[in-house]
Formats: sequence, structure tokens, C-alpha cells
Amino acid sequence: MTSKRAVVLLSGGLDSATAAAWAKAAGFGVAALSVDYGQRHRLELEAAGRVAERLGIADHRVVAVDLRAIGGSALTDDVAVPKDREAIGAAVPVTYVPARNTVFLALLTGFAEVTGATDLVIGVNVQDYSGYPDCRPEYLRAFETVARLGTRAGVEGARFSVHAPLLHLSKAGIVRLGVSLGVDYAATLSCYDPPAAFVHCGRCDACRLRRAGFAEAGVHDPTVWASGF
Amino acid sequence: MTSKRAVVLLSGGLDSATAAAWAKAAGFGVAALSVDYGQRHRLELEAAGRVAERLGIADHRVVAVDLRAIGGSALTDDVAVPKDREAIGAAVPVTYVPARNTVFLALLTGFAEVTGATDLVIGVNVQDYSGYPDCRPEYLRAFETVARLGTRAGVEGARFSVHAPLLHLSKAGIVRLGVSLGVDYAATLSCYDPPAAFVHCGRCDACRLRRAGFAEAGVHDPTVWASGF
Repeated sequence: MTSKRAVVLLSGGLDSATAAAWAKAAGFGVAALSVDYGQRHRLELEAAGRVAERLGIADHRVVAVDLRAIGGSALTDDVAVPKDREAIGAAVPVTYVPARNTVFLALLTGFAEVTGATDLVIGVNVQDYSGYPDCRPEYLRAFETVARLGTRAGVEGARFSVHAPLLHLSKAGIVRLGVSLGVDYAATLSCYDPPAAFVHCGRCDACRLRRAGFAEAGVHDPTVWASGF
Repeated sequence: MTSKRAVVLLSGGLDSATAAAWAKAAGFGVAALSVDYGQRHRLELEAAGRVAERLGIADHRVVAVDLRAIGGSALTDDVAVPKDREAIGAAVPVTYVPARNTVFLALLTGFAEVTGATDLVIGVNVQDYSGYPDCRPEYLRAFETVARLGTRAGVEGARFSVHAPLLHLSKAGIVRLGVSLGVDYAATLSCYDPPAAFVHCGRCDACRLRRAGFAEAGVHDPTVWASGF
């Protein structure tokens, strides 16, 4: 008997690695999709490859989409990544990529169609989203409708589910879940602006949330932090 | 006074050219987005450039997304384009690209955010869609919800509209509308498998619908058909 298939969006970060581990633990046969969207650094994709390998995900594909042609974000454009911000999550940040999760979920839907999956898994969560609109539960529910109405499988009666197993977890809660599932967080990369391979800057929003998450979870933090952090 | 902005998905085909002309005639300031999704031929993108030029659309961008990494269609994969089919539109055809319009509308939503537009224009229509699920009205309404819930502008109160001005027009009706708006159809390319630049094969579904459309509309057909067609 083959298990039900799920497709997971794998960024190489802490959250998506945990979401992928959740999908495996839930009994899905997991295939993973990473999106090369013109990131400032390729290290994120390398991390995704490491994570897939550690989790034993054999079908890991990378789809390239050049969002730089659209622009509008510190992650893809010539805008500086903010460091040492006082308030995280106060408003939509400059690292917001226009319609990013919609683009990513659309690609994941295409991948689901090809692999015969109707379960989509994404590591979005309230703690991390820092004001990104395309991480909210009502958004994810709306996307399920689009996936059902816009696919061959949906026309033939399939329902699509967008699973966001981390949605209501704090960063510490995510770390605790991941540790319980055996996730090797040393393989993951959260930093928006890594100074070198495997090294986290410690100052961007993502780094600060990551560090606080490990501290609050009370578990060993395997992250290599930049000197002085 | 500046006019309201709209973003148009421009493939270089007959339909999207007509949709773009509609948007201009409706008073929108139009910017256009073409998607390079690993088509078998680059001629489609060249046609899009010609169409934008003829319509006086200065802001025309091309976003590359490599859907071949996902696969699953005669338009992006190693599947033969069907020719001389008896029935067109009987079922979802092999030229269906997984979640194509969802990917395209997602990219168009990102482009809308960057340009400040909340009006998205797409040339889908019932006559042409030949069973593609992601052209149906209920699908387009569902996507409007995703665009509103998943964008910064939507969070700030904007409503998004997906305009499909050709949705209930036959191919002949589209041609009549376009001619009345001054569209130069010689600049457009419909063929799935063009034997040469500016030449239509005459045998694929798209060619047969195009030819029948001009004939039924009773207007001059400027298409260059392959020898014998």
C-alpha cells in the first residue's frame, strides 16, 4: 500500500524543514519543491537540498522564477535588508516579496497536479510572518478554492488541502516540534543576509526570531552565528 | 489626472491582444506582463513584444518561470502537440499546463502590487479554453479573493478585480471586438507549433479556432498560414 502523497514547499529555512518533517511523520509520501526566485544568495537553495537529503525526500525539484523582473522587495531588489529593528512585525516589511506565497503556492499546485498529490504543505506561521499578508489562515483557505477550481484534478472532483501545520506555533513551539521529529536544524538557513555559507548574521529579523526561538524552547541551538553574535 | 492602472497578461496571441486593447479602450493606463514559461518556441514572446508596441504599451515586462522543472504538458514537455483533432474541447487536452493560469495570475498580482494596480486583465474565454479548468468564471472570482487576501494593498483595503472581457465571446466575437478596437492581428501568434516566424501551422487546435474565428467574423484574416492551409 502506498501512502498518500503530499508536496511541500521547502525553502531551506527552519520552518519549512519542520513542516516537511511534519508531513513525513503524518504518513504522507513527500515530494518537495524549492523556488529559486532571484534570491540575493544561493545558499538558501543549498540549504533546501541539505534538508531534503536529511529528511530522505528523494523527489526534490527546484523551479526558477525570476521575480526581479517585477521587483519591489529587499530580498530580490536593490533595497537594503533591515538590521537591528526595534519592532518586528509592526507592519508589512520591505522584505515582503509581492505576491510571493501566491506564486509559490501556484507552482506547488502545478507540482501537485503532476505528482498526483492534493495535499500542499507550507511552513507559514503567525510568529514568523511579520506582517506578510499571504500567510494568514483566510488567505490559505481562499487558495484551496483556487487550487480546486483551477486544476484538472479539482474538475474531476478532488479537494485540495493547504496544510500549514506551524500556523499557530511560536518559533519556540516550532523548534520543539522539530526537535521531537528529529529535524537537524544545523542543515537549515534562516538568515536574510548570510555573511558566509552556514553562517547567520544574527541581526536581521529572521535571525533574531530564530535565536529567540531556540532560547525560549530551551534546546541546544546548532546555528553558527557571525562573530560577535 | 492620471488614469487608473491595470496590468494585462500578454501572451502574444489573438485573445490577449484583444484583452489589452479592451483595457486601453476602457480608459486604464495599461502595463503588460508576459511569462516565459519554457515554451517550445520563443516566437510567442516576440509576438507579445510586437503587440505591446502596436498598442503603445510602454511598460511591458517578461518574467521567466521554468515550468519544465515540473513538466506535464505538450507545451513545455516532451509530449507531441495534437494535430487535426476531430473534437476540440471534449476534455482537458494534453496542452494543458499544470496550474498555468494560477501561476500567471499570481505573477500578475505581484506586478499589480509593484505598479499600484488592482485591476488584472486576462484574455481567457470559453470558446478557446478547450477544457482548461483555470479559465472558468468561478475560478477567476476565487482568484480575486486570493489576490485581496494575499497582498499588501488588499490588507490596506483595496479590492482586486480580475477582468476577463472575452469570457463569453466566441472566437468570432473576439475578432469582431478587436477589429472595432483597431487591433493589428498580423502582429499576433496563436499557433502551438509554428513552422517559422509569423507562420501558423493551420492544424493545431489554436490554429483551427483562429481560422474559424476570422471566417465566422467575416473579416479579413491577416494570418500567414503554412503552405497547403
